[in-house]
Amino acid sequence: MTKQVAIGIDVGGTKIAGAIVDTKGQILSSLRIETPQGTANDVVAALKQTINNLFEVVPETSEVIGIGLAVAGTVNWKEGTVVQSPNLPFSNFKLREIIDSELGLTTFMDNDANLAALAEKYYGVAQSAQDFVGLTLGTGIGSGIFCNGCLYRGATGAAAELGHMVIEATGPQDSCGSYGCLEIMASGRTLVHLAKEKVETNRKSLVLELAQGDPKNITGPLITKAAHQGDKLALDVFNEIGFWLGIGINNIVNIFNPELVVIGGGMAEAGELILAPARKAVSKRALHPNKDIARIVQSDLGNKAGVIGAAALVFDELFV
Amino acid sequence: MTKQVAIGIDVGGTKIAGAIVDTKGQILSSLRIETPQGTANDVVAALKQTINNLFEVVPETSEVIGIGLAVAGTVNWKEGTVVQSPNLPFSNFKLREIIDSELGLTTFMDNDANLAALAEKYYGVAQSAQDFVGLTLGTGIGSGIFCNGCLYRGATGAAAELGHMVIEATGPQDSCGSYGCLEIMASGRTLVHLAKEKVETNRKSLVLELAQGDPKNITGPLITKAAHQGDKLALDVFNEIGFWLGIGINNIVNIFNPELVVIGGGMAEAGELILAPARKAVSKRALHPNKDIARIVQSDLGNKAGVIGAAALVFDELFV
Repeated sequence: MTKQVAIGIDVGGTKIAGAIVDTKGQILSSLRIETPQGTANDVVAALKQTINNLFEVVPETSEVIGIGLAVAGTVNWKEGTVVQSPNLPFSNFKLREIIDSELGLTTFMDNDANLAALAEKYYGVAQSAQDFVGLTLGTGIGSGIFCNGCLYRGATGAAAELGHMVIEATGPQDSCGSYGCLEIMASGRTLVHLAKEKVETNRKSLVLELAQGDPKNITGPLITKAAHQGDKLALDVFNEIGFWLGIGINNIVNIFNPELVVIGGGMAEAGELILAPARKAVSKRALHPNKDIARIVQSDLGNKAGVIGAAALVFDELFV
Repeated sequence: MTKQVAIGIDVGGTKIAGAIVDTKGQILSSLRIETPQGTANDVVAALKQTINNLFEVVPETSEVIGIGLAVAGTVNWKEGTVVQSPNLPFSNFKLREIIDSELGLTTFMDNDANLAALAEKYYGVAQSAQDFVGLTLGTGIGSGIFCNGCLYRGATGAAAELGHMVIEATGPQDSCGSYGCLEIMASGRTLVHLAKEKVETNRKSLVLELAQGDPKNITGPLITKAAHQGDKLALDVFNEIGFWLGIGINNIVNIFNPELVVIGGGMAEAGELILAPARKAVSKRALHPNKDIARIVQSDLGNKAGVIGAAALVFDELFV
């Protein structure tokens, strides 16, 4: 009996990841290339190449029933359009149609953070939840919202921009042009920025030592390493970022009364370093009964959430 | 042929309003009393009296099919419980069951701001919208959220506390204990507070003149009156409150990608005095395409939104 599988593609600004995923969320095969830093056509060519390469390794016992695309940007999922993207050369670009028609296989597409939440619902920590919010903490902050058991996309698919929820209106300017958005207060980019700022006045930190004396070498994982070794500067940075993350989660808890808030993305790997101060802020600020109901948990899908979510979209559209 | 009607009751901290409402949202009869400032039993007695008084004026050609209660507080609509209320003596109080059993008529209950949004969907400005948010601007700020055509209540009915979304985390303390919530930044209470503060240093304002020289007499409608006459202090106050309201709406627009944001409640009667600066902040800050999609409109239900929404809940539960 043939096994039904989907091809899930995670289209990011720096890398394109692809995988063959079965209906249980297991990855049968995967690959990863750098995203071409060129035109939309260059990215489309790389996408097609990725998909074709995956087709070549589909097991004989499997049948690919569709392609799912998780795109880093604003997606109109109804129209199959990438409306805009901060790190990809797409603007009102009918990506779904191109992939669909050129490869002759039903294609579905959505925003990557929406699909990371879908992955949590299908195969991750949110399988039993009807109402939850997934936050993807990386260089920026993405999110996906489940309301009454369904992914909530809004009028034109642009909902769930929780990274651009203002939590400190008089705060620093964000890349979106606004001020004090969750993203500028609590993202991985800001974590690194803050550590670089602090080493300027505190040259004795382990952070600077691990960076071989050059602040330019400071990265998120490096700060995490220093914090795990008890470095005060690194712990301060996580406490500060965690506080702001907690303000964002406070809002999520008060607005959505969710069962779960799932924290994923690269920065989530810092675990309790960032989650403990976030939980503290939520506990101090959020309303009853909302804060008693909502559990704040770490994703266990890691950087596979995008490809698994893209495949889950195919199953969700074709089976549900 | 008998006409089916519902009794809608709006249970607020200062008044209880009741109405007989038909399925077209028309009010056939209404009354309003002051809320007893006593125990839960006192409020229940007043509620029963209100309902009985309404029953006496039900037209012979009408049949009451249910009672709807719109309660100012956190409601668990599944269990029919008022979880807590800032201005009513209810705490984990099974109000629905009491009204239901003692009056022998099917009773439904929800938070008043949720039901104001339901009223907009059934009979107000949001009839054709699937995704919208209603904000009720009064002494505090309540809200109701429609996702995919349904009222969104969250895991335990406590969702949509947009008044307690933090927009300026380092801002002043709110009555909920948190800091910089939308409510403390942009509610009617803060409007009056701000005007009182400003007249201390500017004694020439028309606001103070209309208040007969005593800041204690300053009210929302008085500030509105002064602003309509071009008083700078009053206009400044509206600009400031409107800015913060706009930050809140910016978040709503980015989070929900709604078709509409409906502004109701007493303070909405100030109209463009508060909506113009709010729109300006949204236009400057919110994301594309969200801000191009979302229309910010004033409710036309006025203070009847509660009773009409309570009746709409009955129709929604029994007919849909």
